[in-house]
This record gives sequence, structure tokens and C-alpha cells, in this order.
Amino acid sequence: LEDVNKLENQRKILKYGIPDKGPEYNVYENHVLNYDQARKIPSWVAEHITQDKLKGEANRKHSHFKPDPNLNSKFNAGNDDYLKSGWSRGHMTPAGNHKYKQTAMNDSFYLSNVVPQNYENNAGFWNRFELYCRDLTKKFKDVRVITGPVFLPDLEESEDKIFIKYQLIGKRQVAVPTHLYKVVIAESNNNNNNLIALGAFIVPNKPIGYDKQLTDFMVPLEILEEKTGLTMLPKLDQSMTKNLCSVDSCQLMSRDKFELYFIARRLQTAKNLDQLNKIYNEIAEKKLKPDDYLIKLFKEKEWQLKEKELMGKKHQKEL
Amino acid sequence: LEDVNKLENQRKILKYGIPDKGPEYNVYENHVLNYDQARKIPSWVAEHITQDKLKGEANRKHSHFKPDPNLNSKFNAGNDDYLKSGWSRGHMTPAGNHKYKQTAMNDSFYLSNVVPQNYENNAGFWNRFELYCRDLTKKFKDVRVITGPVFLPDLEESEDKIFIKYQLIGKRQVAVPTHLYKVVIAESNNNNNNLIALGAFIVPNKPIGYDKQLTDFMVPLEILEEKTGLTMLPKLDQSMTKNLCSVDSCQLMSRDKFELYFIARRLQTAKNLDQLNKIYNEIAEKKLKPDDYLIKLFKEKEWQLKEKELMGKKHQKEL
Ligand SMILES: [Mg+2]
Ligand SMILES: [Mg+2]
Repeated sequence: LEDVNKLENQRKILKYGIPDKGPEYNVYENHVLNYDQARKIPSWVAEHITQDKLKGEANRKHSHFKPDPNLNSKFNAGNDDYLKSGWSRGHMTPAGNHKYKQTAMNDSFYLSNVVPQNYENNAGFWNRFELYCRDLTKKFKDVRVITGPVFLPDLEESEDKIFIKYQLIGKRQVAVPTHLYKVVIAESNNNNNNLIALGAFIVPNKPIGYDKQLTDFMVPLEILEEKTGLTMLPKLDQSMTKNLCSVDSCQLMSRDKFELYFIARRLQTAKNLDQLNKIYNEIAEKKLKPDDYLIKLFKEKEWQLKEKELMGKKHQKEL
Repeated sequence: LEDVNKLENQRKILKYGIPDKGPEYNVYENHVLNYDQARKIPSWVAEHITQDKLKGEANRKHSHFKPDPNLNSKFNAGNDDYLKSGWSRGHMTPAGNHKYKQTAMNDSFYLSNVVPQNYENNAGFWNRFELYCRDLTKKFKDVRVITGPVFLPDLEESEDKIFIKYQLIGKRQVAVPTHLYKVVIAESNNNNNNLIALGAFIVPNKPIGYDKQLTDFMVPLEILEEKTGLTMLPKLDQSMTKNLCSVDSCQLMSRDKFELYFIARRLQTAKNLDQLNKIYNEIAEKKLKPDDYLIKLFKEKEWQLKEKELMGKKHQKEL
């Protein structure tokens, strides 16, 4: 009888439905996420990275940031919220993790996968962190990553009382996270030897210099869970895991390598020989040492652009 | 084939489970709530108030604030978080809405139903708002209320940039909401004339004087939904509802009546004739006019306490 009363009360209380935070998760081509309808940003974005998915012809020039049509439009962010806000549109699952398929990369440009991120952080430390996660696929067959925002007090400012303070941008008041997190699970199964390496990291949403190591931002998973209110890996037996930064170095790309990596990316998009040479000369200016890959890339591109210019001159003559 | 790939990706991504925010809702004897595991307070608490549930012998002296055993203990708040924090333990569904049954009242003392609330607000304006909701049962057969915290920027402080800032209290860092909300649905069905009155209110979590009206805090439901990220009443056809403050006055109890109400409550707990008279004399001191109910209450209590003192004297003599 007690239970019948309780059930009857429940039915009467919820006559007009259960207050709704939105779906538990949304599934995309190559990632899964939960959206925070109050803050207009994701609360977590989960992905599975393998070597196969990192190869391919998908190109971000075909992708465009846009509101996610799968969300209730009432809670969507818009590009105009980010425009001139002083904050970049930071991918949670990065575009570069979906090279195998254009539609998968396009999905990562939905604003449901984006938070307002400090420009320098996005282009610098965070980018190197993402490259590190991709690099893990060389050692580990399966790399799983959960990425998202977290809101923490600024402990440097705290006196007696502790506060959380964060900015809202745009007319839809999109929340700017104070920090970003990643949970990384790297797994290999060689000769029946199953290794699961686990690491959780919380990085401030601000510029992070080369003097900082990834290990400086490592936290116990339970601390991250307490702060986000999320139980990240409900089906993982954590006693079976090893510390990622013990199993692997957790070394991010050095400043030199990272700058060469960017120069390589820019070389690939050079539109003429002048541009190509200007970019290549930066290597010497910055006192960097080009590796074989970069030299080969330069030569190939140089040949390509010379061909193009010859074709152009020939075409002009014919006219 | 496309869908098969997507499903296969989903399965691989979520190998270790879906990041878990906790249950969609928890059901108690006479209320239902969703808990915010990150902030350690509820996000909404739903209830159904009727005249029957407001009568009875349940007494808050038998109830005690305590952590909710139905929550994952990792995300629970504790009484020690509130102690000496400068903030009161504010019920979302008030104890007084569960007089019909002690276990229902006890459930309302779980900290899952509590947020850090300004003392004056809790005892004053918010208390009068709760009394108003109870009073609605005199006019409306069914009164449904959804109550919770909401985090908003302080518009008075805002310059160019907008921020949300809120305090955290205790070692578990329980979030202090900047505002509290209520959605009130009052419904009557007389002579086949179905009336559904709807009102949404956002009240700052600070002292609110008698100069303020409830209507000063009324907001369109969609604004509240946008700020909380909640679709409050997914099954309600809002086009069928009327504005609560047009159908009813939305008048809170006046200062005089509210003070008499408190004196009545204190009269009922007087332990001896001296105390009783002291409390009753406050009526004259505060220049209030006692109503018939209060006079009757005083006389009954006076007679009760005289009896008790006579019995005490008789008992002493016998010893
Ligand atoms: Mg990025
Ligand atoms: Mg209260």
C-alpha cells in the first residue's frame, strides 16, 4: 500500500511531464556527446581514435562551424555569439581526428562540439595535447578520449570565501569554461597482454607556455568526476588500469617540432612560389632545423607550384 | 551501411560506458527531484500540493537534515558544509507542504532538497511565497510547483562583459545559487470548466523587503527554461493556460499578517505561562491587531499551560 501511494503521488506530481535537461547523449558519425542546455556548450564529448581514422582526404576547408540541428534550437549557440567575443571556437573532438571521412569531420564543426576557448591555448598547448593523443595510436591500438569544459574556482584569487566566476558571451550567453579536461584511455592487446592506460587532465582555459608539462595538469579521475558531476567511465574497472604517464612519457611535442609542424601545414597551402619560399625561410629565421619530411614536402610543393606557373604562362601566351 | 558504421563507432566509443550525470530523477514519498552532481544541490524539485496534504500531525521537530542515502555518496553535500557558512539550509519543497505524513516531511529534509539560501530570504519573502502557494489550494484543487536554483549574472555589476559568479561553501564546495525559481501550475475543474493557471518566478537569493511584490519577479516560462536549460513542463499545452497573476492576485501575505502568523507559531510551542504571555504581549508592542484565530489559540494554550502547572504543583505536594 505504501508503494502504491508513492507511485500515485509520483504520477500526480509529474502530470505535465518530467523537467527535461535534453537527451542523455547525441550520436554523430564519429563522436558522441552530451550537451549542457543551460551553458550552451557540451558537457562531455567522447571519441575513439585509431590510426585508420587519422588517415584520409577529409579537409577542414570543406567544413563550417554551425548550430547543431540535432539540438532543441532554444538552447543552441550561434556563430554570432563567438564573433568578436575575444574567444575562439574550440573543438572538443578536434577536426584532425576525423580525417578518414568528410562527414565525420563536418560533424565536429557543429557548435555542440565547441566551447569558447582562449586563442593561444587552442593553437598552442591544447593543440599539442591533441597531437599527443593522436600520437598515442602509434603505441596503442585503441585510444579513447572524453573531452569537455569544467568550471572551477580561481584558487589564486581565493581568500576566505571561494567563488566560481565565468564569462558569458554573445546574445545567447554562452558560458566560457574556466578549464578544459580530457580523460585518455589508451589500450593495447599484444600477445594476450591487455594494457589499459588511464590519465585525467584539467587544463586552465588560458595561454600555457612551453615551460609547462602535461603531467603538471594530471589529476586523479575521481577529482575530475567530483568537479564535473560526471561518472566518466561507469563500466571500466579502474583497478585494471595503469597510470598513462607511467606507461608512456606524456611528453608533448617540443617547441621546435611544433613550429616545424605548423610550417609544414602552411607549406602545404602555399598558393605560389613566392609564398612557399617566404614560409620556408622562416625555418632559418627561427633557427629551426628542418627534418627530412619537411625538406621533401618543400621540394614536392616547389615542383608542383613551378608546374602551375609554367602552365599559367603557357595559358597566357595562348590567349 | 552508413548507419551500421555509425552504430559500430558508437559501440566502440562507449566501450567503458556513457559518462553519467546521475539519475534523471529520484522519487520520494511526496516529491520528485533531479540532483546536480557538480553543484551538490538539486536542479529541480517537483511537488503536488492539495488541501489534504497540508493537514496532519507531521512535525518538523521529528525531522532532521541529512545527506540523501539515495545519492551517490561522492556527490552528496553534508550538514558540515552548511555549518557556519553564513547560509541557511533552504528547503526547495518546504516541510510545511507535507503535514499529512511524517515520512513525507522527513524526506524533505534530505540535503538533496536543500540549497544554500540567504537567511532573511528563507524566513521572509520566500516563506511568504511558499505560504501563497499553499493558500492557492483554497481556490484551486491541484497546485503543482517546481522549485530550484538558477545561476544568473548580476546585471547591476555588468559592464562590457557579463559574468556569472557564485560562492562555494564547505569542503564539498556546495554551490550557492544566485537566484531561486518557482514554476506554479494551479488547476481547478469546476462545472466542466477546466482552468490551468501558470506562473514562473525568479527571485534573487538575498533579502527581499515588503516593498517588493511577487509580480516583480514574474518571468516568461521560456526565459526561465533558457536560463536553467530545462524544459519544465514537456507535456503541458501552454496555449491552454492562463497567467496566474491575472487569474489570481499573486498577493503575498502582508507584513502584519505574516508577523501574526509567526507569533501564532511561537504561541503553539510556548513551554510555560510566562513565555506564553511574553509572546502574546509582542502583539501589542508591535501594534498588531490579533485576529479571532490568534485570540482563540492564546486562550486554549493558556488553559493548557495552567492545567499543566496545576498538575505540576499537585505532583510536587505528593512528593
Ligand atoms: Mg582546437
Ligand atoms: Mg525555507
